[in-house]
Amino acid sequence: MTERAIGPVAAAWSALAALPRPTLADLFAGDEGGDDRLARLCATLDLPGGPVRFDWSKTHLDPAHLAQFEQLADSAGFAERRRALFAGEPVNASEGRAAEHMAQRGVGAEASVEAAAMLHARMHMLVEAIHGGALGEVRHLIHIGIGGSALGPALAIDALAGDNPLVDVHVVSNIDGVALEQAFAACDPQTTMIAVASKTFTTIETMTNAASALDWLGQNGVGDPYGRVVALTAAPDKALEWGVDETRILPFAESVGGRYSLWSSIGFPVALATGWEEFADLLDGAAAMDRHFLEADGAANLPLRAAFADQLYARLRGCQTRAVFAYDQRLALFPAYLQQLEMESNGKRVTTSGEPVSGPTAPITWGGVGTDAQHAVFQLLHQGTVLAPVDFIAAIQPGDTLDPAHHRILLSNCFAQGAALMAGKAADDPARAYPGDRPSATILMEELNAATLGALIAFHEHRTFANAVLMEINPFDQFGVELGKQIAGEIERGGVRFDASTEALLAAAGIGA
Amino acid sequence: MTERAIGPVAAAWSALAALPRPTLADLFAGDEGGDDRLARLCATLDLPGGPVRFDWSKTHLDPAHLAQFEQLADSAGFAERRRALFAGEPVNASEGRAAEHMAQRGVGAEASVEAAAMLHARMHMLVEAIHGGALGEVRHLIHIGIGGSALGPALAIDALAGDNPLVDVHVVSNIDGVALEQAFAACDPQTTMIAVASKTFTTIETMTNAASALDWLGQNGVGDPYGRVVALTAAPDKALEWGVDETRILPFAESVGGRYSLWSSIGFPVALATGWEEFADLLDGAAAMDRHFLEADGAANLPLRAAFADQLYARLRGCQTRAVFAYDQRLALFPAYLQQLEMESNGKRVTTSGEPVSGPTAPITWGGVGTDAQHAVFQLLHQGTVLAPVDFIAAIQPGDTLDPAHHRILLSNCFAQGAALMAGKAADDPARAYPGDRPSATILMEELNAATLGALIAFHEHRTFANAVLMEINPFDQFGVELGKQIAGEIERGGVRFDASTEALLAAAGIGA
Repeated sequence: MTERAIGPVAAAWSALAALPRPTLADLFAGDEGGDDRLARLCATLDLPGGPVRFDWSKTHLDPAHLAQFEQLADSAGFAERRRALFAGEPVNASEGRAAEHMAQRGVGAEASVEAAAMLHARMHMLVEAIHGGALGEVRHLIHIGIGGSALGPALAIDALAGDNPLVDVHVVSNIDGVALEQAFAACDPQTTMIAVASKTFTTIETMTNAASALDWLGQNGVGDPYGRVVALTAAPDKALEWGVDETRILPFAESVGGRYSLWSSIGFPVALATGWEEFADLLDGAAAMDRHFLEADGAANLPLRAAFADQLYARLRGCQTRAVFAYDQRLALFPAYLQQLEMESNGKRVTTSGEPVSGPTAPITWGGVGTDAQHAVFQLLHQGTVLAPVDFIAAIQPGDTLDPAHHRILLSNCFAQGAALMAGKAADDPARAYPGDRPSATILMEELNAATLGALIAFHEHRTFANAVLMEINPFDQFGVELGKQIAGEIERGGVRFDASTEALLAAAGIGA
Repeated sequence: MTERAIGPVAAAWSALAALPRPTLADLFAGDEGGDDRLARLCATLDLPGGPVRFDWSKTHLDPAHLAQFEQLADSAGFAERRRALFAGEPVNASEGRAAEHMAQRGVGAEASVEAAAMLHARMHMLVEAIHGGALGEVRHLIHIGIGGSALGPALAIDALAGDNPLVDVHVVSNIDGVALEQAFAACDPQTTMIAVASKTFTTIETMTNAASALDWLGQNGVGDPYGRVVALTAAPDKALEWGVDETRILPFAESVGGRYSLWSSIGFPVALATGWEEFADLLDGAAAMDRHFLEADGAANLPLRAAFADQLYARLRGCQTRAVFAYDQRLALFPAYLQQLEMESNGKRVTTSGEPVSGPTAPITWGGVGTDAQHAVFQLLHQGTVLAPVDFIAAIQPGDTLDPAHHRILLSNCFAQGAALMAGKAADDPARAYPGDRPSATILMEELNAATLGALIAFHEHRTFANAVLMEINPFDQFGVELGKQIAGEIERGGVRFDASTEALLAAAGIGA
């Protein structure tokens, strides 16, 4: 990158840092207050699964910030980087790869979209064959994968499958054998299939768990354990070599990153649990968000607008975290999913051109489920010294069939928290006073279903990308995870000396002695 | 508080801020390196459940920091506040209450210990009666509680009960009816008991869920639903009034705070799932840690030493978070438990005397389970711009019976991560370089069992208290959660106008229209 290209970005950041900082109360009270503010910062998208409202009005974004952030986006080449992303160009420059998860949803370079559709057709056939009984009775699936191969399926199944899934899926990720044994305890080996999900088909946790799962099938009278395996991978040759029959290998493209892979054959367990139509709806909902992100400009682009707020708090206010609270039990895994998406994508320290970044990158994403979190961590949000911007997520239609009071109280609490964080409260007793002026955003879906879940996840993928553009980093590599793997390998192989603490821990545990 | 009392604390903080900042590599390489460093910062306690190693050597604590933090602890009156805590004095000054969770474990003021033992005897009898069949066949327990009434039981049962609990317990906390319906789907109403756990017996989530659970029993042919209820509460009169028979009300003392209540009758579901002996072992393990905390002085006191490191990162290095990763699937809920304990206790902004605090209070506690988290968030830990001190927790003995490779790889990865964070790695390609010098602590148990779990939790309780003393705050109140509740109540009752955003959200959801 040339000095000429760096200049305008740095200038935009300087201009942002110099802007006045009105409080939320000022913003709602002033001539930008009330309805004007909602018109500018709250928008509803009509998506395939129903309308979804994105309310960013209770953040400190004001017209001056929006204009200056738009200037920053221009200077950082947002439109060009977005174009390159959707065109399937190698936007993951450090690895020389494209990032084509959108093609899985039918949006992107024509050849990639066609290739994804062909692989989906293959996956669809296998799903129908299993549901139709062609592979014998299948009541359980142990889905073995970790990180990107686990979090997406676990989230989508939890959110969509309810208490009567078509197939009972257990997602096992941890190398700790306790996780696999928990799945064994819940499954009948005679009616259990095993999905082995690994982009490279070499992930040590996944391959170790897969071998133990096959042992379990064999020890429990299953004659041909390999005949029960479906492989989900971008390395089909490795799966074949490992022993999976070609008819049960579901490949996906190398250009689909692990943490963006739910849409590919990694989504197989979702389709098996909820049916193909649900999986197709998930893709459609995401595609609608893709089109919005591709077509909307400036702050009218909702993922970009969210990134403006994210950058405001991370770079202008020094926030090291961002919290998300889903007021919906079905989305209990959403914070964990988002943690990976954002922290693995944007937890970087060099720009796309290899220079040290000029400010903080991804904050730490954390959160929980409402109303539970109110009784656990909201004390700090309201009265702590650390400012953490908050996202709330909720659905208007209940997911339960109990007394409507349950869902009404759930939503009342969600909205009350946003109001309370902003308003604060004075009190004579300082221990009972709330400073207020604490920001939140709210995503309110008419209904949580496959399509709105797809849109919700795609919104966050694009928000993550938009943040990366504003910070001039590459969100698609993850070299930071290699050193730990390398040292774990050295420990396993022995013969390397580490620091005194690590040596003492290894000795205490009797490893490598 | 007088100027004279404030002075030495501020002076200690100033002295701490002025200390040199050697890197971890310096500390391990210098004359404090290697074995000296381990001798000073790694200690093993012999506890009832087996030895537990506490290794704080890979933090930036050096002899100068330790000495100055000891000075700070003296200035802040640590010994006196600890004495008052264990003596049952009203250390929760803003509410005029003692904090006597240790008395539940047999440590503290004699009258409180005796009172707790009597209530435990009552609880023990009920547990034995249920296990003995005196209340009919009981195969399932739906435990309804939220926050402190849910997280402790959920953690302990997950960690200790395994796949064959004596009674199958489902902890339901969320007001979202989906949570309760999930429990219904897993339970047979004919053999299900309901535990209603609420300190005040007025918590809206818990009382709403309890009412719906009774409806479910009634609708499924249970003649006397109230006859299936056990109440766990510090307000036994309210439980009686609500309809629970006196013989099935298990009270606990007002001086036991919600987030410290696992040891009281709130632990009933733990005893029901694992047996009374396990619950008693949990208490014994915690009591052993109580005695260590009460008797050890200065940096030899392990919870206080941990608090020194916590304060070093929070106040001297500006860390807004602290992460904990349990390399044990059985402790998957530990980060959530700790979040509540630390953030609700120490997420405060005024001192015990009502003055604004002089520096940041509790950081945001977050984390996950290893090795899963390595594939999700460790990218940021290694290569992000945010410094987050990390605790690792593991057990030498496996919790599974699979190929020992599972547990060996689990531990190798745990130790490898601590080594990698500290060592870092240079590289020609900046995208592949690791800065290193990132701190971690490791708690390594010989075995995870009821006693070591009790000790682990008690360690964190006392660490939280020690942090509060160093920050001069009251960890035992939680007024910060009141405003949200109040506004939710106003929404429910109607007639109050809120900000334009909140009004629009309420209108969109059709609430209070």
